[in-house]
Amino acid sequence: MILVADNLRITLPAIGRAVERLDPEPIRQMVSACMNAGAQAIDINSGPLSRSPEEKMTFLVRTVQETADLTVVLDTANPRAMAAGLAAGSQKVMINGVSLEPVRLKRILPLARQYDCDIIGYLLGPDGHVPTDASGRMEAAVALFNEMQTAGISPERIIIDPVVAPLAWQDGNRQNMTVLEVIRTLPDLLGFPVRTIAGLSNLTTGAPDPGTRRRYQGAFLPMLVAAGVSMILLNVLDPTIIRVAGLSQRIAGRTVFSWQ
Amino acid sequence: MILVADNLRITLPAIGRAVERLDPEPIRQMVSACMNAGAQAIDINSGPLSRSPEEKMTFLVRTVQETADLTVVLDTANPRAMAAGLAAGSQKVMINGVSLEPVRLKRILPLARQYDCDIIGYLLGPDGHVPTDASGRMEAAVALFNEMQTAGISPERIIIDPVVAPLAWQDGNRQNMTVLEVIRTLPDLLGFPVRTIAGLSNLTTGAPDPGTRRRYQGAFLPMLVAAGVSMILLNVLDPTIIRVAGLSQRIAGRTVFSWQ
Repeated sequence: MILVADNLRITLPAIGRAVERLDPEPIRQMVSACMNAGAQAIDINSGPLSRSPEEKMTFLVRTVQETADLTVVLDTANPRAMAAGLAAGSQKVMINGVSLEPVRLKRILPLARQYDCDIIGYLLGPDGHVPTDASGRMEAAVALFNEMQTAGISPERIIIDPVVAPLAWQDGNRQNMTVLEVIRTLPDLLGFPVRTIAGLSNLTTGAPDPGTRRRYQGAFLPMLVAAGVSMILLNVLDPTIIRVAGLSQRIAGRTVFSWQ
Repeated sequence: MILVADNLRITLPAIGRAVERLDPEPIRQMVSACMNAGAQAIDINSGPLSRSPEEKMTFLVRTVQETADLTVVLDTANPRAMAAGLAAGSQKVMINGVSLEPVRLKRILPLARQYDCDIIGYLLGPDGHVPTDASGRMEAAVALFNEMQTAGISPERIIIDPVVAPLAWQDGNRQNMTVLEVIRTLPDLLGFPVRTIAGLSNLTTGAPDPGTRRRYQGAFLPMLVAAGVSMILLNVLDPTIIRVAGLSQRIAGRTVFSWQ
């Protein structure tokens, strides 16, 4: 299981300022901290980058890859920023992501084919909403997988994100049980060992304090690991959560166990 | 999900002495502590009670039921002690348990029928060993469920314990993934919403220290809850573990969520 840091967000003031000024130092510090905490990949959550998207995304990708040997996950809805990031990156670049929304399929899928890179498909319907029941999520997963393959994406390149629901949503807990079911059953349903990813921080959107956030994430994370998720997008700078990730993997591992 | 305290063990010196002397006070203290910690049932782990089994088990059951309104889980391999416990108890008594071992089937099943009480069936083969692979556990579950029904036990009375493996066992982690699978799939396999139970403390047999024990139990517990286990036998006097049980249930709940 691969831990993907979700810590590099342009909405953090220090990161936002660094991107505006093309100042690499705050980015480097964040990337180093994530790598030291155990991240194997890092999500560049750049937002839409409405001004100078190419320049800014190129700066971000180069700064990250000069700092650490981490897979870079390009997390932007802006196709121009995405294209620039892919052009700037070395081999270890991933697209985050595409969904059944027609505009995304049309603008993003060709980039994935052109650069032959991993691409995350997340389970939103064509209307941009999360299907709320299990069958809707399963149908969306199958439709998206097929759509991506039809566009020439190799199944090995596809990573499905069933979209963790905030617990504070009505039915959020029930929806997340469906998320686990999708992760567990999708490979069988597709007849292909498709990889999956889940975003843990989403679970606790609206939580009243960091302790509550940590406790709920720490209880949901083992459920994701037991379901067989391939990658988790999470706050790698929380040592408690990283410890739970390690414990869960040792419990669920296929390897010989040791207490460490 | 029901939390069953596994704290009342005759192997604890204070409890062992109290049973020898028929001194109710140490028993009462333990039972009160378990109830206050959130237990809804309590396991009386009395061991074989080779001397005066009837007198001692009667004393134990009466003391527990005079102290608290908890379901009493009679955990002894001695059929004479079991019979005495059932005779002494009020309605809220459960047998722990029976397996495919012929001597247990023969001596314990008639008691369950006679007292029309809940009974735990745990997944050991006829030779007394835990089946090590998934299909062996599934076969044992189906065979045991059928055997119990054939003996006149109503399916509503049956609770299956797939036997959590110590992580320190060779293949313990792989076996526990099978335990989760049994819990998740058994109701479908049997075509009946059979209840399940898991013993959490077993996971960390041989753990080097209490912190390690707590951390591993705290990561496995959410996996059990997500799998849909009906009852968990655990150390209710560990507040961390009880907190994780609550978090896990709120995450997996079918109810409207609140952060509490």
